[in-house]
Amino acid sequence: MALQTTLDEIAAELAPRLGEGKVADYIPELAKVDPRKFGMAVVTLDGETAATGEALEPFSIQSVSKVFTLALALGRVGDGLWSRVGREPSGSAFNSIVQLEYEKGVPRNPLINAGAIVVADVLLAGRQPREAIGEILRFMRFLADDEDIVIDRDVAKSETETGFRNRALANFMRGFGNLVHAPDLALGVYFHQCAIAMSCVQLARAGLFLADGGRDPVTGRNVVSRERARRIAALMMTCGHYDGSGDFAFRVGLPGKSGVGGGILAAAPGRGALAVWSPALNAKGNSLVGSLAMELFVRKTGWSVF
Amino acid sequence: MALQTTLDEIAAELAPRLGEGKVADYIPELAKVDPRKFGMAVVTLDGETAATGEALEPFSIQSVSKVFTLALALGRVGDGLWSRVGREPSGSAFNSIVQLEYEKGVPRNPLINAGAIVVADVLLAGRQPREAIGEILRFMRFLADDEDIVIDRDVAKSETETGFRNRALANFMRGFGNLVHAPDLALGVYFHQCAIAMSCVQLARAGLFLADGGRDPVTGRNVVSRERARRIAALMMTCGHYDGSGDFAFRVGLPGKSGVGGGILAAAPGRGALAVWSPALNAKGNSLVGSLAMELFVRKTGWSVF
Amino acid sequence: MALQTTLDEIAAELAPRLGEGKVADYIPELAKVDPRKFGMAVVTLDGETAATGEALEPFSIQSVSKVFTLALALGRVGDGLWSRVGREPSGSAFNSIVQLEYEKGVPRNPLINAGAIVVADVLLAGRQPREAIGEILRFMRFLADDEDIVIDRDVAKSETETGFRNRALANFMRGFGNLVHAPDLALGVYFHQCAIAMSCVQLARAGLFLADGGRDPVTGRNVVSRERARRIAALMMTCGHYDGSGDFAFRVGLPGKSGVGGGILAAAPGRGALAVWSPALNAKGNSLVGSLAMELFVRKTGWSVF
Amino acid sequence: MALQTTLDEIAAELAPRLGEGKVADYIPELAKVDPRKFGMAVVTLDGETAATGEALEPFSIQSVSKVFTLALALGRVGDGLWSRVGREPSGSAFNSIVQLEYEKGVPRNPLINAGAIVVADVLLAGRQPREAIGEILRFMRFLADDEDIVIDRDVAKSETETGFRNRALANFMRGFGNLVHAPDLALGVYFHQCAIAMSCVQLARAGLFLADGGRDPVTGRNVVSRERARRIAALMMTCGHYDGSGDFAFRVGLPGKSGVGGGILAAAPGRGALAVWSPALNAKGNSLVGSLAMELFVRKTGWSVF
Repeated sequence: MALQTTLDEIAAELAPRLGEGKVADYIPELAKVDPRKFGMAVVTLDGETAATGEALEPFSIQSVSKVFTLALALGRVGDGLWSRVGREPSGSAFNSIVQLEYEKGVPRNPLINAGAIVVADVLLAGRQPREAIGEILRFMRFLADDEDIVIDRDVAKSETETGFRNRALANFMRGFGNLVHAPDLALGVYFHQCAIAMSCVQLARAGLFLADGGRDPVTGRNVVSRERARRIAALMMTCGHYDGSGDFAFRVGLPGKSGVGGGILAAAPGRGALAVWSPALNAKGNSLVGSLAMELFVRKTGWSVF
Repeated sequence: MALQTTLDEIAAELAPRLGEGKVADYIPELAKVDPRKFGMAVVTLDGETAATGEALEPFSIQSVSKVFTLALALGRVGDGLWSRVGREPSGSAFNSIVQLEYEKGVPRNPLINAGAIVVADVLLAGRQPREAIGEILRFMRFLADDEDIVIDRDVAKSETETGFRNRALANFMRGFGNLVHAPDLALGVYFHQCAIAMSCVQLARAGLFLADGGRDPVTGRNVVSRERARRIAALMMTCGHYDGSGDFAFRVGLPGKSGVGGGILAAAPGRGALAVWSPALNAKGNSLVGSLAMELFVRKTGWSVF
Repeated sequence: MALQTTLDEIAAELAPRLGEGKVADYIPELAKVDPRKFGMAVVTLDGETAATGEALEPFSIQSVSKVFTLALALGRVGDGLWSRVGREPSGSAFNSIVQLEYEKGVPRNPLINAGAIVVADVLLAGRQPREAIGEILRFMRFLADDEDIVIDRDVAKSETETGFRNRALANFMRGFGNLVHAPDLALGVYFHQCAIAMSCVQLARAGLFLADGGRDPVTGRNVVSRERARRIAALMMTCGHYDGSGDFAFRVGLPGKSGVGGGILAAAPGRGALAVWSPALNAKGNSLVGSLAMELFVRKTGWSVF
Repeated sequence: MALQTTLDEIAAELAPRLGEGKVADYIPELAKVDPRKFGMAVVTLDGETAATGEALEPFSIQSVSKVFTLALALGRVGDGLWSRVGREPSGSAFNSIVQLEYEKGVPRNPLINAGAIVVADVLLAGRQPREAIGEILRFMRFLADDEDIVIDRDVAKSETETGFRNRALANFMRGFGNLVHAPDLALGVYFHQCAIAMSCVQLARAGLFLADGGRDPVTGRNVVSRERARRIAALMMTCGHYDGSGDFAFRVGLPGKSGVGGGILAAAPGRGALAVWSPALNAKGNSLVGSLAMELFVRKTGWSVF
């Protein structure tokens, strides 16, 4: 069956469930988004793109950005990163601080908030926040092959003003000496990367290198080494959905990363990349309908890695 | 390169490291095992077997058994199991009780001790412990196509006498109503399944159905459905190495399950199954040299799922 | 105002609130008790006794017994006890196991369940459970100057059959090596000490030595040294009401110890001892009306230590 | 024996131990203090003052200030305070954040850092930080009857620059809505109250009202009601030494409050107030020699409340 047909079927099947769940409301700007939005896109290794719903409408990628900043930070400091952040699932919520106290300021993995703030701190080395933010944005444009990607300044401002728990995480880690820069600088980078706005099509295109061993199969450019691509995918599988990572692996079977904006990016090695967007979240903070869409897709196509 | 050559290379490369780590000593019988033992075996989907070292010597499979009792319990109660046990990584040690208190007696997943004790309780329904143990043993013999597999009675006795933490877990869950049978009955099944003795060759053979969508590719018999095989593999990937699961996924990239006897079983979908044995453990309670052997194997063969 | 009048006033004021709260239901025998029972007694240093309500009716003293077994264990091993049990409030429920894992099997204090099980283990040294239980019972009779005190066998049996969480605690500590005897032996002592049945008058009389520097002011016999009496009282103040200890100190200002049978014993140094009984418990597991009675008593008499 | 003789004996007995423990080093200004400093003072209800060592030298009172801001906040909002902060011992370190997550931003008691930051937030209502700080300073001068008490600006600045964990606590609570003002404003008040410098003589004098039912026995002025004084003392007894509160109650038997500057204030109801200063701390963050001095004092005088 053509991918386009598959996506259209999924959109039709899930239409009755749009709006189930709860839009993230702790970031006021995100709370304004219509919970019934839905878009989905697939890009295959040979560059074929299929899309359904509002797959061209930009949304706030939020924590999906953590996959890309992780790739950048590994490019900068390589395995040195792992002295400052772990590689294990957290067993707790995306913004939990408990583990940080027990493990002396070392976050469990780079895909929870605390870990991504350490990654942002790494990207700041020798630079101003503005430059680090610029590098991240350029990386997204390069990967998506689209110069139109921008940061939503209202969302960034909203997060800066209300991000108390992230500020707590950053100060807590700084107290343990696990941030090099002032917490507000690392948070500045972090809040802006989260506020990048992309569409499903752009996001799937940007993640394509994770499905082809670190290489962009369309342009042929190497983004990261094969081993690094595999390792990033492994982290997505075990840690990409916070305390719902096990369930996503169980139901979908693909490395994926969610964001509280309602987006999910998944990579199917050797096949392609998928992105879905549906703003209402489940209890674990992952897109409710988006997760179902991924599950249906894999059931219809067999693209599980297992 | 032939698989046999690959295995022999791995054995040679790791020979200098045999004995690194620490043999499990809380089960007196296991503490007697020579920490420098090493065996490894691979069975491919077309039935080819390669083996190196002491790959024919039986060892105590311990928690590797949890994969198989999970398959049996799912066969009995299907998705009903998930009301009594979760599907998320634990973020803590294999025998941690903390999470059980916070989550009211529901273990995080079926591959940690508490979860496997619930699974044992499921297998007890309507039967005596002896019958449930018999079913498990028959299942292992059937899967390995080998009637010589037995339970090591000394190990079972040793665990029964010293398994205080497991007894604590069982009583704690019983206090929450999440065991149906008396704790000692469920523990009786659990201690005996852990005491099953198998060789690497037998273990890899028994796990082969996980690499072929639930079907035994040699006999053609269906063991579990394709979807169930994928789901079991997903749980192995996210939860199979306790609080070292993320690291195993990161370094190896295959669904695997370890046991404190020093064994690890891994499945490479579409390719084959692997088993390794090296008794000395790392700080997370997984075979130290066994993990390295799996990592080397995947680096040499590219059998990662990512 | 005469103590008798004070007690009668308290009984009258609290009559409308009898039955508020919830009788402990995890021990089936205790669940049968009428939640509207109420008794209160005071014994002064010069031997004057005042009592109101059902102050002569025996009830299950449960955890109030921990004060007395602590005194016995200190008599046996002195400060050696403190290598096996701490002296700090727990910050969690009476039967929490979380802290035991973080602190490697050493309970926070001797007045929570885990700590009292260690104390019972101390009392077992060189003896059979029956002998240890006999010693405890004789101590209570001696202190209360009343040979009629007995153990309620039905309650003891009920606890033995349903005390899964206590069994979990005991096995967990045994796993850390912090019980010397088999868990079931220490639990045997513990369940029987909890099942001692005493009236308010007996209990206040038995606790009188804590109000007079370790000496029974009526008989003139020394029970414990002055320093030890102070220390036991200090532990009652900081740890005697589980995670409601701070609140009891705040509202009552006397060292006290509660039990899930609805009893509370308090000592007013230099003045006398009080006991109250009202079976329905508050959310922290302490007698709801009993706590109020203590608070009223101190407000009317000024017997706070502060 | 005269109090003066008692204090001199204590100073002599503890001289060999001065310097044991570790000066707080996370506030750079405090790390500069000579760890061998020692001072102690007692003020009795009839105004007699005895002092030994460097009892007239001002030191940073740090968390001892929490007792006084608590009294002020209760004067402002009364029992309304208890909807925002608990009254139970924490069972963890003075700056732990774990409990805040489990209990949704409500600190366990007003004498740990998080609780005192809430208290500071209460004192800010309708005012600028400068005014709130001014009120606290005036209160201390009034209580100590000494206009020379000042805030050490270098210490306040040092804490402001390095207080990352306190900033984490404040932001975390703000995320739960349990701070009304911006975290930096509440922290401004908190850091300045901690930086108040007082001598042992001043501190004992300031705390005298806690030993006389809320009344200053020298001037006859009422500071707080009798009930409130008792309650503050009860909180000091159960929560005044962080996770060493039980031990202080056990060994000393007086309501007390410590600070990381090495000071301890204790109140002996009906007798007098004591203050001690010795900068080197024990593992729980309380003055090591200061705690011993309090213990010796009570052993020599019998001023325990028990």
